[in-house]
Amino acid sequence: MQTLPVIAVNGVIGAQVSPLDRGFTYGDGVFETCKLNNKKIPLWDLHKDRLLKSCERLLIPVTEHLIEAKLFNLLADINIADAIVKITVTRGEGGRGYRSPDSVSPTIVVGVFPVAEYPPTNFTEGVTVRLCTQRLSCNPGLAGLKHLNRLEQILSRTEWQDTSIIEGIMLDTNGNLIEAVFSNIFIVRNGELYTPDLSEAGVAGVMRRFIIETLAPQAGVKTHVVILGALDLFDADEVFLCNSLYGIWPVKKLIADNQQDFKSGAITHRLQNLVNKTLFA
Amino acid sequence: MQTLPVIAVNGVIGAQVSPLDRGFTYGDGVFETCKLNNKKIPLWDLHKDRLLKSCERLLIPVTEHLIEAKLFNLLADINIADAIVKITVTRGEGGRGYRSPDSVSPTIVVGVFPVAEYPPTNFTEGVTVRLCTQRLSCNPGLAGLKHLNRLEQILSRTEWQDTSIIEGIMLDTNGNLIEAVFSNIFIVRNGELYTPDLSEAGVAGVMRRFIIETLAPQAGVKTHVVILGALDLFDADEVFLCNSLYGIWPVKKLIADNQQDFKSGAITHRLQNLVNKTLFA
Repeated sequence: MQTLPVIAVNGVIGAQVSPLDRGFTYGDGVFETCKLNNKKIPLWDLHKDRLLKSCERLLIPVTEHLIEAKLFNLLADINIADAIVKITVTRGEGGRGYRSPDSVSPTIVVGVFPVAEYPPTNFTEGVTVRLCTQRLSCNPGLAGLKHLNRLEQILSRTEWQDTSIIEGIMLDTNGNLIEAVFSNIFIVRNGELYTPDLSEAGVAGVMRRFIIETLAPQAGVKTHVVILGALDLFDADEVFLCNSLYGIWPVKKLIADNQQDFKSGAITHRLQNLVNKTLFA
Repeated sequence: MQTLPVIAVNGVIGAQVSPLDRGFTYGDGVFETCKLNNKKIPLWDLHKDRLLKSCERLLIPVTEHLIEAKLFNLLADINIADAIVKITVTRGEGGRGYRSPDSVSPTIVVGVFPVAEYPPTNFTEGVTVRLCTQRLSCNPGLAGLKHLNRLEQILSRTEWQDTSIIEGIMLDTNGNLIEAVFSNIFIVRNGELYTPDLSEAGVAGVMRRFIIETLAPQAGVKTHVVILGALDLFDADEVFLCNSLYGIWPVKKLIADNQQDFKSGAITHRLQNLVNKTLFA
């Protein structure tokens, strides 16, 4: 049995990164965190699509073939069934200064980490979350991308130590509801789904996309991608979080100026069952 | 003669960085870029002050002693008179996830790079700059810090390839004038200095601080730190840029929807001479 994590830098297990790598000097890159489930990565096509589009947006030249070769070669080598797989692509080594080097040779890091063990009650009863003080800044040029500039998430995550609080809800600097620190968010109202528009801020999660495009239609639930405020959260019938590692967690309690309890309702459970059946079986 | 760059990771020349270093995974750290001038770093106290305050803001535990030991030991070892010195401090290695490790052991990277060769006309005639399309996002919790989340600067710097354009002027998402890609900005109007308030966005440069606190008072010029818009730029009598490597460059031409020429005026030159005499002699 392989001891995890196993990390390969440009295909070399145990290799390190240059201090001139622009991932290190400027957070100049993107990443994906995927579930490895019985030797398969659920939603790999959506992960790959976001990764390639994000690289394109940042003008990092990388091919689907290169990423898949590095990823699947490592997975074949270590031959493990269940894990968390993280793929990072940076602009590679550069000189001093923001200007991209004339010839870019991207760095591809694939890390295989142990499966995350979440309390079973996260799935059944739901999770307690808090409203973060730290806001997300608005930047249409970077919104949606899972890039390596993550200080806002890090500052948010420093806001609580209480282990009974599982996630933090984040607003943007305009006061709009955007996401949670490592999850996307949906609310249910009158039997329909609402999730924040992410054209100004936030990470457009792969599980969020799968729910919008596939699961909600399959479950016969209408979805609205709209601008939402913090108040919409308090008015919700149900609230749930999602990401590609855990699927869906109902929110049972929101800690803010006014504490609020939510029912873990029918629509959340219907979607949760669909995720488990479709992706994690 | 030592071949530059020389880079030491935690005191070890030629060492590399862990792919689990949070500088690499999240841009979770800060940096300073300093001029080494005849074996001395002008404004080192201001660089150190910003570095320590930025680490404090990000809750990265590091001491003045530790930073100075790593910096001055390397400089003593390589024994060079003139260079550019870059100091990076990150939160060190972490696991997967945004949460700070329980025990943080910061990574300190000191890099010594060749002196930057700027065209002499940058100083005498001034530089041509463009107004960038990419905006700076607003985030009071990170504003002012020279942190490692630099994708906005990188995207701005991709906007032009024309080598006659030396810098790009950046507005924030509210349309306020903030800075240039690797410089701060001042405008002169009716014999007084104006420079953008950086409480929402931007990097609070060390040379900017030295001009505000020391040089302008010494030159008998009043300085206003205020909210400025792009239009204030077009109304200016003189415009100049500054950073700790080159000191002061007059702006001679601004390329935007309307192109505008500026005089390289008396106040800019008075301050430029003071910088050269005080710091770079």
